[in-house]
Amino acid sequence: MKAGIIGLGLMGGSLGLALKDSGLFSTIVGDDINKIHRRQAVYLGLVDECLSMEEILDCDVVFIATPVDSIVQIIKDIKNLRENQLIIDFGGTKKEIIASIPPHLRKNFLSLHPMCGTENFGPKAAFKELYQNQIMIFVDINDSGEYQVELAREICLNLGMNIVKMDRIAHDRHTAFISHMPHILSYALANTVLKQENPQDIVAIAGGGFRGMSRISKSSGVMWSAIAKQNKDEILNSINAFQNELKNAVEMIESNDFESLKEWMSDANKLRDII
Amino acid sequence: MKAGIIGLGLMGGSLGLALKDSGLFSTIVGDDINKIHRRQAVYLGLVDECLSMEEILDCDVVFIATPVDSIVQIIKDIKNLRENQLIIDFGGTKKEIIASIPPHLRKNFLSLHPMCGTENFGPKAAFKELYQNQIMIFVDINDSGEYQVELAREICLNLGMNIVKMDRIAHDRHTAFISHMPHILSYALANTVLKQENPQDIVAIAGGGFRGMSRISKSSGVMWSAIAKQNKDEILNSINAFQNELKNAVEMIESNDFESLKEWMSDANKLRDII
Repeated sequence: MKAGIIGLGLMGGSLGLALKDSGLFSTIVGDDINKIHRRQAVYLGLVDECLSMEEILDCDVVFIATPVDSIVQIIKDIKNLRENQLIIDFGGTKKEIIASIPPHLRKNFLSLHPMCGTENFGPKAAFKELYQNQIMIFVDINDSGEYQVELAREICLNLGMNIVKMDRIAHDRHTAFISHMPHILSYALANTVLKQENPQDIVAIAGGGFRGMSRISKSSGVMWSAIAKQNKDEILNSINAFQNELKNAVEMIESNDFESLKEWMSDANKLRDII
Repeated sequence: MKAGIIGLGLMGGSLGLALKDSGLFSTIVGDDINKIHRRQAVYLGLVDECLSMEEILDCDVVFIATPVDSIVQIIKDIKNLRENQLIIDFGGTKKEIIASIPPHLRKNFLSLHPMCGTENFGPKAAFKELYQNQIMIFVDINDSGEYQVELAREICLNLGMNIVKMDRIAHDRHTAFISHMPHILSYALANTVLKQENPQDIVAIAGGGFRGMSRISKSSGVMWSAIAKQNKDEILNSINAFQNELKNAVEMIESNDFESLKEWMSDANKLRDII
């Protein structure tokens, strides 16, 4: 079997490295819109070689690991597939991506979302352990072909991933709370500090707390602004819920109600029970 | 020399372990308001033995590593000290703590703030590497005795720490942005998710981003509500700056201005240059 990877950044590049190790594919080829990234990907050994989009789309399994707006564009350009071909997208949003799949090719497609990543991006950020022991969300699998679901399952288990199934509505709502909104918060935190006088003096004393809270503000704006566009309503909804919670804290502090604030903090501690 | 540690949780307990290793002190004794913590601290070897507060205050160097409201209470009860005694507080806020120091004993006191910690608390959370390679802020050192500053410096360097000097006003402002406000955000994020329907289903798919953003929401509410009380104005000011930044993002998303959102995210990426 031959694998093709469209998008050779952190996600696609790490996938190339991991698939090579898996031995599931005889050849792994790739494509990237950025010519420098294409050269880097081959030089770094993320894929065997870079080919044209047309040649990639002829592979037995095609992974689309680009920003979500590009995923929709790429899917729209796919006209024909062989019966057993499997096209997998790694998009962080699902409603718009799944709606863009041509109905007559629906069985060929499987929409997955790997819940892993780092704040680094581009081919140089790739490393082969990225997917190990991480969660892969399988979305709307009932609309995909049985062969395709089974093959995707085999690939993901081979990568050492844990599979969680979800429909696209639940996916977009849950990921807004657990991933998209927290990214917006981290970007806002970084920009807040950077706008202060002499931000380097503030950041000079940063401990683990700030490092943890600000790490994902270093993520790609190209990728995350596209996610914000596609999951706008759920993200606004989750930010609104957060704003109410923060306003609640501000009111307790303003009114010197530190007993209630302590209880509110203890309530948050209950997160320990589930994560 | 004999060291005494008041408060045998994560900070005080880890200090006990690290000081034992340093060989600077012949004896390390401790006290904690919680009887179980006193027993645990001795059992875990964090201190050699637990003594009364009066006996602790007779030590050559006394560290106060309790929540900030207790620090103020403990300092107020100190009436007399020998000339070369050194009393160090580890409070995360400084204006109120320093104001509580009796003027005739000011030279005996040194106000330090270790910029390290974990979300865990209590004696069992202690580990001897906590302070290694971390930052220690020395606050208002000109008001402390020369002997005391030099001794504190020797202790901190021995613990493997990097020293940063600051006055109490800058300290309370900077730590609001880099530590206190981010803690409030993390508590608010955790409570936002916990209030959703079936939070365990949302949290089940959490990746590194959410784990990083929510980790410090597991911190002690007793400790952090006391900090919020003592640094109220600076914390409200920093939360307000954050709220404006977040509102800015919401407005870009609402008005479908994803180009500006992308630039705003790229602006946040500049944090890479300083941390």
